[in-house]
Amino acid sequence: MSKLAVYFGTFIHSRSLTELKVLENAAVGVDKNGIIAFVEEKVDDLKAVLNKHKEFTSAPITRTKRGQFFFPGFIDTHIHASQYPNTGIFGKSTLLDWLNTYTFPTESSFKNLKTARAIYSQVIKRTLSHGTTTATYYATIHVPATNLLSTLCQTIGQRAFIGRVCMDCLGPEYYIDESAESSLAATEETIAHIEKIDPTNELLTPIITPRFAPSCSRPLLHSLAKLSADKNLPIQTHLSENTSELELVASLFPEEESYTHVYHSHKLLTPRTVLAHAIHLSDKEIDLIKQQQSKISHCPNSNTNLTSGFCKVRKLLDKKVDVGLGTDVSGGYSPSILDAVRQALGVSRSVAFLEKSPDHALSVEEGLYLATRGGAKCLGLEDKVGGFEVGKSWDVQLVGLNLVPELDEDGNLEDGGDPAEFAGTPECTVDVFGQTADWADRIAKWVYTGDDRCTRQVWVGGRSVVNKD
Amino acid sequence: MSKLAVYFGTFIHSRSLTELKVLENAAVGVDKNGIIAFVEEKVDDLKAVLNKHKEFTSAPITRTKRGQFFFPGFIDTHIHASQYPNTGIFGKSTLLDWLNTYTFPTESSFKNLKTARAIYSQVIKRTLSHGTTTATYYATIHVPATNLLSTLCQTIGQRAFIGRVCMDCLGPEYYIDESAESSLAATEETIAHIEKIDPTNELLTPIITPRFAPSCSRPLLHSLAKLSADKNLPIQTHLSENTSELELVASLFPEEESYTHVYHSHKLLTPRTVLAHAIHLSDKEIDLIKQQQSKISHCPNSNTNLTSGFCKVRKLLDKKVDVGLGTDVSGGYSPSILDAVRQALGVSRSVAFLEKSPDHALSVEEGLYLATRGGAKCLGLEDKVGGFEVGKSWDVQLVGLNLVPELDEDGNLEDGGDPAEFAGTPECTVDVFGQTADWADRIAKWVYTGDDRCTRQVWVGGRSVVNKD
Repeated sequence: MSKLAVYFGTFIHSRSLTELKVLENAAVGVDKNGIIAFVEEKVDDLKAVLNKHKEFTSAPITRTKRGQFFFPGFIDTHIHASQYPNTGIFGKSTLLDWLNTYTFPTESSFKNLKTARAIYSQVIKRTLSHGTTTATYYATIHVPATNLLSTLCQTIGQRAFIGRVCMDCLGPEYYIDESAESSLAATEETIAHIEKIDPTNELLTPIITPRFAPSCSRPLLHSLAKLSADKNLPIQTHLSENTSELELVASLFPEEESYTHVYHSHKLLTPRTVLAHAIHLSDKEIDLIKQQQSKISHCPNSNTNLTSGFCKVRKLLDKKVDVGLGTDVSGGYSPSILDAVRQALGVSRSVAFLEKSPDHALSVEEGLYLATRGGAKCLGLEDKVGGFEVGKSWDVQLVGLNLVPELDEDGNLEDGGDPAEFAGTPECTVDVFGQTADWADRIAKWVYTGDDRCTRQVWVGGRSVVNKD
Repeated sequence: MSKLAVYFGTFIHSRSLTELKVLENAAVGVDKNGIIAFVEEKVDDLKAVLNKHKEFTSAPITRTKRGQFFFPGFIDTHIHASQYPNTGIFGKSTLLDWLNTYTFPTESSFKNLKTARAIYSQVIKRTLSHGTTTATYYATIHVPATNLLSTLCQTIGQRAFIGRVCMDCLGPEYYIDESAESSLAATEETIAHIEKIDPTNELLTPIITPRFAPSCSRPLLHSLAKLSADKNLPIQTHLSENTSELELVASLFPEEESYTHVYHSHKLLTPRTVLAHAIHLSDKEIDLIKQQQSKISHCPNSNTNLTSGFCKVRKLLDKKVDVGLGTDVSGGYSPSILDAVRQALGVSRSVAFLEKSPDHALSVEEGLYLATRGGAKCLGLEDKVGGFEVGKSWDVQLVGLNLVPELDEDGNLEDGGDPAEFAGTPECTVDVFGQTADWADRIAKWVYTGDDRCTRQVWVGGRSVVNKD
């Protein structure tokens, strides 16, 4: 339970894939459960609005300052919490050697709970600080560390999908599930922990996590699909990331028509399945994913830096597949979804160049849709988060930009005002000069030149979880 | 003139294209002219070292703290200072429509000196804050504003090459040089200003700046080449950025064999010429550039985001062409050369993917070489900046990383020390856990996950120009 609260000023969110809506002088009331109770636009007289919503008349009011706006919290649909210590460390590796050289050794260190506590605490704090109010985590194979991640998300206050990693094949001797049965049993333990500490899934949801096809036996894939069906739980895995991985999957599952069909045959393609990467798909595979209503987590930072290839997001969107964004830490080096938006725009331009078709380029508006409402749809949260509507949870970031005044030689503003007051949010690196005063340009500047310093406050379910001011 | 100073601790710089050298417990003395007077490695007894260099015995000592290191200042070989307000604003444009929609209107606003002062001051402060100690600026066509940029660089203390933009063709009516003669005369005025305020070119060097071939008449190209030869001045321009631009150049200069030959025919390819982009070059063009010893500024951020294409840097390096990095603000959205390193690595991986050859991938070490010594060579400064050697200028940044301790449940360090003291530089976003203690991994993390918060202090020519602590 939190306290009643009122937010007043500028609000920006996606109206559709291609359109951002700016609400100026809006007032939003948030109830004691952290749920939006009213949204009033174009408010001339805030007092009158609060008189209309009587229980809010004495609620504290948080106002946007000059150059600030409320924006829905970001949704990271694919992040390996346990790989966070390795961000930026790739050497010249690609997927399969990267797993053995960097990833498995780091993940195996989570048998030590002190290591897990240090790293998981920092991941949650950093991602929240970047405005990620919902994260879909891969943990490791370890039950105690995975349970600790759940507990820390609840304590610190981040909405999270927590997946114990299942892998009974391919891993090194020091880091592998002993059998399909033990993998299933361990997964059930982590589900039970969440059922105990968050029985209504207010913040936490367990997510069934077969690492990826090559690291799971057929019996394990089958039993995880059954567990998902029995308990109505979401699923996450990887799909079609790297060309050598495609060859490996073809050799391990020679009976399957494609990589996507491996998951389909094992009943793992559901409307609650999030597939990370999905770069090298045939049209038939995309159609199958669409038919199953499964979702795709686009991870552009990782795809570029692990030399995986270029995901054609426009094609997925044209086929009406639901797409969200993932940081894929540490295949991706950044825990920031703002970075993922930026990189998704860059990758889409590379596709446009290679395909000689500007249609592939994503717009800033489209990138931000994927980062909020798109991600929400991937996780079945579209009625709960991603925008400012009555009934949605107050999962929100307050963003500020640095306004740079034109001063005369004596350092004064033309209108005699106080330059410090003009500045907006000087901690933020997004310099906005008089020339770029409209919100479309400001938002573009935020996406391209912003970082966690622009995110001044963050709330999840109405609770203040970050406050930098 | 600055004061004598001693720097002690960890120093890291490039030994060669492929190798970084870490000097631990090193001591560097900097004389009153800001020049490195001694470099002593593996110092056990600093007092004894200072007794050896007697004039330094009472000089103030700046020490690296845990997780900090001195690194040569970055060199930006291509940045449009005047386009800084537009960073992040592209729409879906590519080069030629981007110039008309965003760039020319903004540049033309520099006829107003108050606008110029606000923007140029902020560009210099931001780039210094990102560790850029030398910047190669495009200004605008305006003499007073270009002179103001020179004065501001000198006042604030950044080493800079300042180029008044020359363009007597192609620009819109409201933003164009009236004639080749007036363009030349205006350029000479900006050179005279620098000769007056910095007669020995201690910090400032004028650089001849034909915008790019399509915006310059043949007489203008000829007269600028002559001016460069007469006054022994460097030249900067753009080359082979965008495929539509290539077609435009071919139609404007039908007598020339290639875009590169346009500059060669007009005697603009000199050992002091910096060519930005150089993406779509034939082997013959690369050979011509090598033969003329001209330099290339690689601008990966801009190339990706303006949908220009993929520069094959490995091929240039294999052909022994000198390459530096450019932010190309605002074709590039970031004023940070650390970002340029990161993006150069990413683009090189995209080339590796497309060419199916991992050899194209650049290493972290290679990226940092391009950002320091590579850039220095492009500007003829290889004996002056880029590394820690006696006789070089103290153009340096102090970089710090955030060390994350593993604490027990009571929040204590295992050895009983103070967690706050362990942290290193908590303002920095580069989280270093125990697992990644060696310098190669730390440097990789800095490159991929760092930003201006990691750069704590900056000096140019021995003068402290940024101090965030």
